[in-house]
Formats: sequence, C-alpha cells, structure tokens
Amino acid sequence: LGSKHTEMPQGLFARTSVADSAAWIDEHVVSLEYEEILLAQAAGRVLAQDAVTASELPPFDRAAVDGIAVRADETAGAGTYNPLSFPLSAMVDGALPAAAGLRLGAGDPLPAGADAVVPLEHVGLTADGSCEIIDAVAAGSGVERKACHFRRDAVLLPAGRRLHPHDLGLLAVAGVSRLRVVRCPRVRCFLAMRSAAGSAAAPAARVDANGPQLRALIQRDGGSIAALREVGRNSAAIAGALAEPDADIVIVAGGTGRGLDDETVAALAATGELAIHGVALRPGESAGVGRRHDGVPVFLLPGAPAACLWAYELLAGRALRRLAGRDPALPFPTRRMTTAGKIVSSIGTTEVCPVRRLSDDRVEPIASLAGAGLAAAADGFVIVAEGSEGIPRGASATVYLYDHGPRPAIDRETEWRP
Amino acid sequence: LGSKHTEMPQGLFARTSVADSAAWIDEHVVSLEYEEILLAQAAGRVLAQDAVTASELPPFDRAAVDGIAVRADETAGAGTYNPLSFPLSAMVDGALPAAAGLRLGAGDPLPAGADAVVPLEHVGLTADGSCEIIDAVAAGSGVERKACHFRRDAVLLPAGRRLHPHDLGLLAVAGVSRLRVVRCPRVRCFLAMRSAAGSAAAPAARVDANGPQLRALIQRDGGSIAALREVGRNSAAIAGALAEPDADIVIVAGGTGRGLDDETVAALAATGELAIHGVALRPGESAGVGRRHDGVPVFLLPGAPAACLWAYELLAGRALRRLAGRDPALPFPTRRMTTAGKIVSSIGTTEVCPVRRLSDDRVEPIASLAGAGLAAAADGFVIVAEGSEGIPRGASATVYLYDHGPRPAIDRETEWRP
Repeated sequence: LGSKHTEMPQGLFARTSVADSAAWIDEHVVSLEYEEILLAQAAGRVLAQDAVTASELPPFDRAAVDGIAVRADETAGAGTYNPLSFPLSAMVDGALPAAAGLRLGAGDPLPAGADAVVPLEHVGLTADGSCEIIDAVAAGSGVERKACHFRRDAVLLPAGRRLHPHDLGLLAVAGVSRLRVVRCPRVRCFLAMRSAAGSAAAPAARVDANGPQLRALIQRDGGSIAALREVGRNSAAIAGALAEPDADIVIVAGGTGRGLDDETVAALAATGELAIHGVALRPGESAGVGRRHDGVPVFLLPGAPAACLWAYELLAGRALRRLAGRDPALPFPTRRMTTAGKIVSSIGTTEVCPVRRLSDDRVEPIASLAGAGLAAAADGFVIVAEGSEGIPRGASATVYLYDHGPRPAIDRETEWRP
Repeated sequence: LGSKHTEMPQGLFARTSVADSAAWIDEHVVSLEYEEILLAQAAGRVLAQDAVTASELPPFDRAAVDGIAVRADETAGAGTYNPLSFPLSAMVDGALPAAAGLRLGAGDPLPAGADAVVPLEHVGLTADGSCEIIDAVAAGSGVERKACHFRRDAVLLPAGRRLHPHDLGLLAVAGVSRLRVVRCPRVRCFLAMRSAAGSAAAPAARVDANGPQLRALIQRDGGSIAALREVGRNSAAIAGALAEPDADIVIVAGGTGRGLDDETVAALAATGELAIHGVALRPGESAGVGRRHDGVPVFLLPGAPAACLWAYELLAGRALRRLAGRDPALPFPTRRMTTAGKIVSSIGTTEVCPVRRLSDDRVEPIASLAGAGLAAAADGFVIVAEGSEGIPRGASATVYLYDHGPRPAIDRETEWRP
C-alpha cells in the first residue's frame, strides 16, 4: 500500500497452454463409479463393466426361417416335379411325429425329432391341412443350433462402450435386462451475474446468454443438472455456491476477468485449489481450473458468451465427458477440408475460428462477433494451435463439423444413399 | 378355395427398391407445423422460421474490454515513460466529466463524452483513486458501436437450422427468448407380440428386443413417444392400435412376414393404404409402408430385431426425421475407408453389412447374428446398393460410423488435438 501502483501490472496473469490444462484435467478427473439401470434407460450411457450374455443365444435349437419343421431324410427326392406330401401335425409330447411336418415361425423352438426347417418358399400349403415339399433339405438347414451365437456369460459389449439404440436390441436378445453403467455426473452450474451496484451498466442491459447454452452443453455431454442458477458476483455468494453438496463437478460462469467485481477466482483460491488461472485460449483466456477441498473439479468460465462456450468445450466439457466415461475429445465429427480464406491466429494462443461450409470439402473463416463473440450460423470450426500463426488460403485444415452435412458424392458401390 | 394350393406361391411378395420406398416417403411425409417454445428448451430442435434479432447488437455503444473509458484526445502523448494521470470519476448525468476516466467492465455502456476504452493492461491504478494511462488510444478503440453486429430484425439463424448449444447463446445475446420450431412428432409404436396360442414357442422364449431399441431410435430422431406398448398379433388388436388418435406417425413391429399370425399387413390394408409390402432390403425385406385414411404414415417393421432395426433406420426413421424437420439421411458421420475383407451382397437387394474398425481408415466386415440378426460391438456399417454384388477386399467403401472415433493424426497446423 506504500507503493503508488498497487495493482500494476494489470491482467498479466500467467497463461497455461490448452494442452497443459487438458493434461491437468486428465490427471485429476476420472470416470465415476457405476450404477445399475434398466436396459430400457440405457441409450447413450457408457458401460462400466462388460455386458455379458444372460442366456445362451439361441437358448434352444430353433427355426431360422418361417417354414415347416421336418426330418431332413424324409425330404430326399423332393422337387418341383416330385412334390412330397406331409400332413401338418401338432406336436406330440413336444416331438414331431414321423412322416409329418410342423409349421413354425422364425425363432420358434424346433420340436424333438425334427432336424431341418423347409422355408415357406419351397412349400405348398394345401386346403386339406397338409403341405407339399418341393425341395429336399439337408439336416440342419433352416435351423439355428442352441448357443451357436453366444454361450452364457460371453462378453457381448465391452466396458467403455457407449450404448447405441441397436445395442439395446442386441442386449435384450441376449437376455440382459439390467446394466452397470457409469453414473451420470451431477453438475452444479452457477451464473455469477453482475449486480447493478458492481457495474456502470443497467441490469436490464445484461442478458443471460450462458445459462441456455451451458444447460444444453451439459446435457449433450451426459451431465445431470443438479443446479443451474444465478448467484451474486461476490465472494460470499460464490464461496457458498462452491461449497454446495451433491456435486461431481462445479462450473461457475462470469467473474474470471479483471473487472472490479471479478471475485470468482479469489473465491476458489480461498476455499480450494486454484490450479490454473489464465489459459492460452481465445476466446476464453481468463478461464480458471481447480478443485474443492473434497477433490470435486471446479471450472471458472469467462462471462462473455463466446469465451464461456470455448472454455466449456475445451476445459469443463472435457472433464464432464471424462466423469461420464465418454471420449474426452470434442464431440464433433471432423473432416479434412480446404480453407477458401486465410485463417489468422496469434502464436502462443490456441484459437478457435468459426467457419462456414462452402462445399463438401471447402470452408471459409467467418468473423465472430467480437463482443458477443459468437458467430452466426457457423457450420463448424477450426482450432489453430498455439505454435501456429494461422492457416493460409488454400491449405488443408481439420474442421470440426456441427452437422454431418451433405452426404459424400455418389460412387460406384452405392447408387442411392439413404 | 377350389384350388389345392390356396397359398402358393408363399412369400413371393413384390419387392420395392429402397430408393423407391424412400421416394414414397419423401413424397408423402413433410415436416410438421411450428410450435413456439422457450429458448432454454430449444437445443436440438429445428427452426421452423428464421430466427431474427429482437434487439440491436450491441443495443448501445459499449466497452469491448475491461478498462478505463476516456476521451481519446486527452490520452495523446501518453507512454510508459510519460504516464498521464486521470482521476477515476463517477458519471455525472450519465456523462464522463472532462479530464477524467471511468472504470468499465467489458459490455458496460460507454458514458456520454467518452469515445474510447483503454484496456486495463495499459493502465496503472493508484491507491489514491486515480489511474495512469501508459498508451495513447484512438477514438473508437476498445469500443463496440451500437448495432455493429446486428441491426434489429436481422436474420440470425435460418429456418431449417437444427439448434446447437452455442446457437442458444447467440440467440440469447440477440435478445431472442421464444422460438418457432418444428413441432415434435408424436410417435405411436406397437409391438405386435405373438400369443402363445399363435405359435409353437413358449411365451417365455420370446424376448422384447424391439421395444428398447425402438424407444431409443425414436428419441434419437426427435420423436415424442405417445405410445410404446405391446399389442396382440391379431387383426382386431392391430386395427385398434392403427386407429388411435393423436399420432403423427405409427410404427408396428412384428407380424409382417409369412407366419400363421402375421396379420399386421392385412390390418393396414383393411383400414388404410398399404403402399408397399416387401422391400429389397436385407435385413428388413418384409417391411411394409402405407398411410391411414387420415394420411398419417404407417410403418410395419419385421419382428426380427435386426430386420426391425434396419427397416426403422431406412424407412420409418427417414419419415420421422422428415416430420421433425431434420435431415432425412441416416444420422451418422460417414468416412471413406478401405475394407480389409470382401463384403458379399446379392444383386437386387440393398444390404446392410456391420463392420469393425481396424484403424483410422480400415474396416472389416463382421458376421451378423443370422437369427438374432445383430452384430456384437459393430463400429459402423456399409450399405451395399441393389446393383452391386459387394465390395472386394482392399476397395474403398463409405462407412457409416457409430462414434466419431479416434481423432485424425496430428498434423502441422495443430500440435495438440482437444
């Protein structure tokens, strides 16, 4: 306080590289423990343990096709010009009587005595309740043997698999009805809003743009929103929010910068561990990363919407995806594309550049809104790494795409693309 | 009935190509009307109308950075060796007094009189409540002018845009709080289960594999599940299900084939229009497509789980995605990859072949479970078109991938891949 310049230099906080920030996250954040859920609720969840078959598949010898169960040797000699007639029988004590056929649907158990199923295409059904076989079959034809697909306790899907809709069909077929999946991370998300007193701006001028986008981002990444609400931008309010129980990850948006009321960072430093403040990321450089005393990771995101978005995507989202057992990488398809315009970047900063798609393999950079900081109708983005000054016009870049976009051009093996 | 062969030939129903089936869908199914929803609920929804800005952006001249608002001409001559001192002032009637500075946060309105904001990096704050400017600024520096990003009523995102999380941030910034989006399709889905009486199989041997996968598929494609339940596999039950009100699309799984109790197709033909029965698709060839009398599209899916899956993906799902305003194409990223094994197919049938990923650019076909019909742990699939006999080993194929999978190899413009 004796010095004239008490706060000089302003804002020159150390900047940690995005890679080092990600390494801190990867070191300190692992996937949560399992919970057991019903198969019907498992879409999109991540297996915490191998899913093993609960029964043999199939559990008995069964018909592979709709048809007539027969003794194969009784069909010898059958043909279009020599149809063999069999009475359609009921089973007797679960067995097929000799010299008879039994109509089955695909998946029906094969009766004792039968060893083949003649598909309906090779059968004439007659009005008098018999059938005519017009093609001889070999033993085993049209039949799926018990356990031919899976033994009991065979691994069907490995731990770590994110369950797609069709995986649920497969698991159901294999008799699985309950699954152990990685527990949903409980996310507590706080919007550190400026009070009118802390700012020259009228409160009406401040719109909460971060709440809607963070809610959607957290849900996309598999988080369960335990809290998402505004808190005052002051130490006490933020410290209180940071201390709330029942959280697997805490996210605070706003108050990370150099404003008069930017107390978020100080609140974390006072109540836990502030591991990183300042990331070589644009937008997003005032972001902070740390932990509570109980080890729960805390992410401090800048309040400007674009900076909030990208600090979420590259830092908080990475941690959330790890907690949820998902691939921690950015959840977008990528494609190598040519840039139709120069993408400018500064050495020493990882920069995110929104792009617009011009064709299947070309993009152009689009201006982001400096203050609002979000680009309208971007189709994706390019990340220019710290060591680069940008990407020249006509060069190839890895583009992260928001939508799968136009199908690739039609080619020889497929005439029509669904 | 006078003829001996009352049902001959069995199962040789006409087969419509997948492309013609898709064309029927595209001709008869369009996106639903709009509904108005709150911004916070809009993630993943599709804009039915252009989203236009509700306010100018920014709505007033404002600070682009955290800093000190000044009159630019008063900073002339400032430098590290010639710091200029300004008292930090309060505004007087919303205006900046002469020869004073006002501390602002990024986004705060610029006071009248001020025309620049000196970033905090170029300012020393002193304990006596004044500041020292160490860099001269030009008028307009550090300021975002009113409406520089968007005028009021400018198109921010076009109709048809599927809303991503960050789009919600952008819309909020632009003052949009309600949106008109394509209404969620109400899906009525029925599982036509075999009764014990209709089959030789014990009921316990029948597992509902289609319910779980259809539920997840419908949700993935933006449908709202109005009904998903079992119905008896008989005309009356199916006709009753088909007639239920409050449906935008009806899906029935099971009973499309040639079994004794396969009455689904007859029920649609009797109560509406059966446009297609039999599709040149494997798995899935007994699928049916049609409409109710009120025009609601109806999809009859085979009961075998894999056939049900693919008839959904290529037919019912296409219609659902169209109703929801989404891209009707299969919702998977695609990549051209080399196949390490021959993919066999039959001319005249579109075949879906599950594949396993061997590396970033190689896949191999994997056997699907003939009866269960689902491949364990497939990473994606290849679609071999009707006109092709398959894809030779070593050839290139378009692979539909379930996951974005490994990131592409590291390359020059990015050293580290988030």
